[in-house]
Amino acid sequence: MSERSRKVVIVGGVAGGMSAATRLRRLDEHAEIVVFERSWYVSFANCGLPYHVGGVIEDRQALLLQTPESLGRRFGIDVRVGHEVVSIDRAAKLVSVRNLNTDRVTTESYDTLILSPGASPFVPDLPGKERALTLRNIADVDEMVAAVARKPHTAVVIGGGFIGVELAENLQLRGIDVTILELSDQILPPLDPEMAAYVAQELVEHGIDVVTGTEATVIGEHTVTLATGEEIPADLVVMSIGVRPDSHLAKDAGLEVNSRGGIVVDEFQRTSDPAIFAVGDAAEKRDALTGDAAMVPLAQTANRHGRLVADVIVGRPTSSKPVLGTAIVGVFGLMAASVGWNEKRLRAAGRRYRAIHAHPGSHAGYYPGSETLHLKLLVDADTDEILGAQAIGKDGADKRIDVIATAMRGGLKGADLADLELAYAPQFGSAKDPINMLGFIDDNVVNGQSELIQWHEVEAAHKAGLPLVDVRTPGEFRRGHIPGSINLPVDELRDRLDEVPAGDLIITCQVGLRGHVAERILRQAGHHVKNLTGGYATWSTATR
Amino acid sequence: MSERSRKVVIVGGVAGGMSAATRLRRLDEHAEIVVFERSWYVSFANCGLPYHVGGVIEDRQALLLQTPESLGRRFGIDVRVGHEVVSIDRAAKLVSVRNLNTDRVTTESYDTLILSPGASPFVPDLPGKERALTLRNIADVDEMVAAVARKPHTAVVIGGGFIGVELAENLQLRGIDVTILELSDQILPPLDPEMAAYVAQELVEHGIDVVTGTEATVIGEHTVTLATGEEIPADLVVMSIGVRPDSHLAKDAGLEVNSRGGIVVDEFQRTSDPAIFAVGDAAEKRDALTGDAAMVPLAQTANRHGRLVADVIVGRPTSSKPVLGTAIVGVFGLMAASVGWNEKRLRAAGRRYRAIHAHPGSHAGYYPGSETLHLKLLVDADTDEILGAQAIGKDGADKRIDVIATAMRGGLKGADLADLELAYAPQFGSAKDPINMLGFIDDNVVNGQSELIQWHEVEAAHKAGLPLVDVRTPGEFRRGHIPGSINLPVDELRDRLDEVPAGDLIITCQVGLRGHVAERILRQAGHHVKNLTGGYATWSTATR
Ligand SMILES: Cc1cc2nc3c(=O)[nH]c(=O)nc-3n(C[C@H](O)[C@H](O)[C@H](O)COP(=O)(O)OP(=O)(O)OC[C@H]3O[C@@H](n4cnc5c(N)ncnc54)[C@H](O)[C@@H]3O)c2cc1C
Ligand SMILES: Cc1cc2nc3c(=O)[nH]c(=O)nc-3n(C[C@H](O)[C@H](O)[C@H](O)COP(=O)(O)OP(=O)(O)OC[C@H]3O[C@@H](n4cnc5c(N)ncnc54)[C@H](O)[C@@H]3O)c2cc1C
Ligand SMILES: CC(C)(COP(=O)(O)OP(=O)(O)OC[C@H]1O[C@@H](n2cnc3c(N)ncnc32)[C@H](O)[C@@H]1OP(=O)(O)O)[C@@H](O)C(=O)NCCC(=O)NCCS
Ligand SMILES: CC(C)(COP(=O)(O)OP(=O)(O)OC[C@H]1O[C@@H](n2cnc3c(N)ncnc32)[C@H](O)[C@@H]1OP(=O)(O)O)[C@@H](O)C(=O)NCCC(=O)NCCS
Repeated sequence: MSERSRKVVIVGGVAGGMSAATRLRRLDEHAEIVVFERSWYVSFANCGLPYHVGGVIEDRQALLLQTPESLGRRFGIDVRVGHEVVSIDRAAKLVSVRNLNTDRVTTESYDTLILSPGASPFVPDLPGKERALTLRNIADVDEMVAAVARKPHTAVVIGGGFIGVELAENLQLRGIDVTILELSDQILPPLDPEMAAYVAQELVEHGIDVVTGTEATVIGEHTVTLATGEEIPADLVVMSIGVRPDSHLAKDAGLEVNSRGGIVVDEFQRTSDPAIFAVGDAAEKRDALTGDAAMVPLAQTANRHGRLVADVIVGRPTSSKPVLGTAIVGVFGLMAASVGWNEKRLRAAGRRYRAIHAHPGSHAGYYPGSETLHLKLLVDADTDEILGAQAIGKDGADKRIDVIATAMRGGLKGADLADLELAYAPQFGSAKDPINMLGFIDDNVVNGQSELIQWHEVEAAHKAGLPLVDVRTPGEFRRGHIPGSINLPVDELRDRLDEVPAGDLIITCQVGLRGHVAERILRQAGHHVKNLTGGYATWSTATR
Repeated sequence: MSERSRKVVIVGGVAGGMSAATRLRRLDEHAEIVVFERSWYVSFANCGLPYHVGGVIEDRQALLLQTPESLGRRFGIDVRVGHEVVSIDRAAKLVSVRNLNTDRVTTESYDTLILSPGASPFVPDLPGKERALTLRNIADVDEMVAAVARKPHTAVVIGGGFIGVELAENLQLRGIDVTILELSDQILPPLDPEMAAYVAQELVEHGIDVVTGTEATVIGEHTVTLATGEEIPADLVVMSIGVRPDSHLAKDAGLEVNSRGGIVVDEFQRTSDPAIFAVGDAAEKRDALTGDAAMVPLAQTANRHGRLVADVIVGRPTSSKPVLGTAIVGVFGLMAASVGWNEKRLRAAGRRYRAIHAHPGSHAGYYPGSETLHLKLLVDADTDEILGAQAIGKDGADKRIDVIATAMRGGLKGADLADLELAYAPQFGSAKDPINMLGFIDDNVVNGQSELIQWHEVEAAHKAGLPLVDVRTPGEFRRGHIPGSINLPVDELRDRLDEVPAGDLIITCQVGLRGHVAERILRQAGHHVKNLTGGYATWSTATR
């Protein structure tokens, strides 16, 4: 190798850091690249850790995608595990590094420094918190696997986010009785409550207790005590209430850090010091909808931004895209995926939006094995810009969210989904794909053929005097309906127009489809109609 | 119902026709809507027919999505099965209709006429062709199910397109020995040969004989005779070599019809007569890449355009989008999907394109059950516009093609795929999703960091003097390599630079990834390098 072009030091040797290192090597054979990793492992599969706890990924080795040796061999990267960077001297362009074997601190110079230190599980200051396990790295998973081997009967998972839910499933697979405790009134915060309810139901059906809207106050020797006083048996306690950016190194060095602890970066991932970049969970992102700072701790973003930083360092004209935060979690074969903003957030921001619910089959109903998809699409009420989407189902939920994420990136509007040409054969979709269906429904609103009302608006509207007409069959109506609704089956509507209450109406059916047909009939008969989006299916799930 | 607004007559009561009819009713309660269908069924699932033959869809009733009665009840549509429209009097705005029960011909007036007569299986003029079955409608499927019930031992499927391949699988599921005969040298014409090869292999592994590059000349009593003289046992013969638009009615009425028999329409699906519209398999489409006329006989297009025609008729400002032709077929659990143009077509059109092959896992390798995806991306060599893509695999091929179809509709470039934010958890994808990978590879070419060579260019380039360096391990190399290549493992490359042949080189590895790493090392050591896209995996499949 000829003369050294630059020396790049990287803090953190996993998703963001190692992606930067390997890409940098591909772009520059002559860079000196040093990666410091305080744990004993690099390039491991964080996202696989819960599945090793459950034994789904049996082989611990499978989690270790690279070693310092393999990275040295292929990429000529100097990877030093068991080395913690303890401070940065920006003026001198030096980092101080503690060798965790010897406890000796040495310094290392850099031309460019990349920070990808990740985030740490947040552990609140509860009595007994020492007993709570967390899961972030290989040491954690080893500890958790050892704890599971001691055959605990019961476990409490504090925090019902993605990782909490994954852990609950995996602990249950080990035969442990699991309770999920969640402070807010729903699990999976990226989803809206009526969507998260499907996942909660799936967990409960698999024997997991889901306790929401309550706080753990004490972790006892074999219990967790709630704010209500209730004690829940807990041989094992896992804390997964979220992560905090590991940005103290950056902060201590005087780099700008935002209010949520994220290292402030520009669209080149450059910190407030031009010689220092930051990526991954510790770095702030830009939100795709507003351009505002956002914290999105996801592996894909860390990987992509890691690659990008290398490009920036060698001078390629490129910049990072604002993030949509596309995410997915699988639990007992059910997928829950989301992209963009949810309704809670849109409401809190006072944004004018439109929500559409649908419950189509994952593929043509006449072909065996179709599963119900629960879809929610959020668009700007004025511009029809797609703002977000959520999908729950045992089949094809991932596909539909990826399609919508791509449509958002391509700047397509809600109604444009009607025209997407998606691959159709009866095993894989429908001639009118669920995505097209969302587009049709939205198109009808955009063009004034339809007006929707949401599950949480029905009660007030009904109380204010709007009659509720349920257009399902008498049998369906008998099995359950919204209080106060009257039954007029869609197929009899034209003959029974005189029975329809005069004036404005709310129409409901099972999912919204027959409601749409009824709405079209009634509008043309002079009624002002709102169709309950998602129908009784959404309403009954949301109000359960 | 009050006064009639318009009278719309529809020819053909399945995908295009019935979608137009139902949408029209939703838009206009006051239209008179008459649908003529010459068969005895409407709204049936054409795409499910092969699966009823195989018993996958057991219940024949499942194929019949609607009946004249159900459509009458819900939509007030006057559906007349067993009624064939035999001529159109454009001047008088009348159609003549034969009642197939009574053989009586009557006339029916229209304000607007919609033609959605579909297409007919093409049956070439072979001796014995009377014995060949075809599959298009319910009568056909009844006949085929009856034939299968007679327990034939052998079957020949003439034509290896999507329907031929589906039928081969389903006949084989019935315990029949099946041979597919295909005139061209590959099955599944929408795919390029090296991609179709994976499907052919899957068929062969399931005991189906796939005979390409040969013609059937005679259909005998229990055999099919080939041009080579060979006789293939065939208790059952199925003809599936493609469809011809059923446009004779339109042609006889003097409507403009293109050279391939497609009814010429504008972007409002209007024929050369402003009172007559056409949709579905019988109508010409506009190609998304060129805007030229195209024939794309797919259910989704028929459904969408059927809906659109209703909109146009009631005066909504809308128009049909040019078509990408996104399509998919499943066979023995393997999916083969495509969108846009294939390489054959781009080459024939003399278009400057770039082809990218990759073979990533459908999801993270460390999580059980990942399946290899075979991906091909085609982009414009100058503008990086996405021109087409193909995906083969047992998991997630549908998703990747739908994402690319959406990216194409959104006007994203090849390199933009690098930045798509797709939902990642280890069961569903990778932190760098296969789609991102295609984007990275393309990005590297766009930015001059990489140059690709294709499997079919290697031999000539090598003969012209370019050395071939295979950077896999010695073990992999021993198990098979491209003739003439030398082995220099990527991980030893930096130490063995003196062994690398001087000057320009072709690099190959298993799939292209290590080749990329090697290319980057060697370029920076002064070599002009081309990396074989898809590596030995693509080359060996293509040249088998
Ligand atoms: C259990 C679990 C499941 C997950 N599942 C998913 C999923 O399904 N999908 C998804 O998209 N994301 C998932 N994630 C998130 C994903 O793993 C992270 O977003 C990603 O790893 C962030 O990359 P990073 O480089 O910022 O941090 P990390 O990958 O965490 O790497 C940071 C590294 O820096 C080291 N480090 C920190 N400070 C120092 C220092 N001072 N000196 C030296 N080394 C230091 C740390 O030891 C650590 O190894 C999951 C995370 C966990 C923990
Ligand atoms: C076996 C099979 C499998 C398929 N699989 C798929 C698939 O997986 N994915 C996909 O996208 N597409 C698939 N297709 C194609 C899809 O079915 C067609 O593209 C779609 O049905 C075309 O709609 P259409 O309205 O033009 O014609 P059709 O649906 O065929 O309807 C036309 C109707 O018009 C009637 N008709 C014709 N002339 C007259 C007349 N003069 N008077 C009265 N009635 C008349 C015919 O009897 C017919 O019922 C498949 C087709 C077949 C046959
Ligand atoms: C594995 C790791 C070291 C990254 O290695 P990497 O070499 O950058 O990434 P990959 O092995 O995925 O290879 C991607 C490269 O190969 C190229 N490539 C992939 N397939 C190719 C093909 N068929 N032909 C040509 N090039 C190809 C890509 O273009 C990319 O190169 P580029 O960045 O120069 O464009 C890093 O991602 C890591 O540490 N991962 C584990 C940790 C982690 O991500 N955890 C969170 C998720 S669980
Ligand atoms: C079934 C068939 C008659 C069409 O009926 P349709 O009523 O137009 O279609 P669907 O039942 O799918 O319903 C779609 C309508 O419901 C609306 N809709 C669907 N879900 C909805 C929901 N949850 N809320 C509100 N509206 C909804 C859609 O917007 C659309 O209405 P629009 O066109 O007015 O916008 C016709 O497609 C057909 O004959 N199909 C079988 C033949 C065929 O397609 N063969 C080839 C493939 S195998």
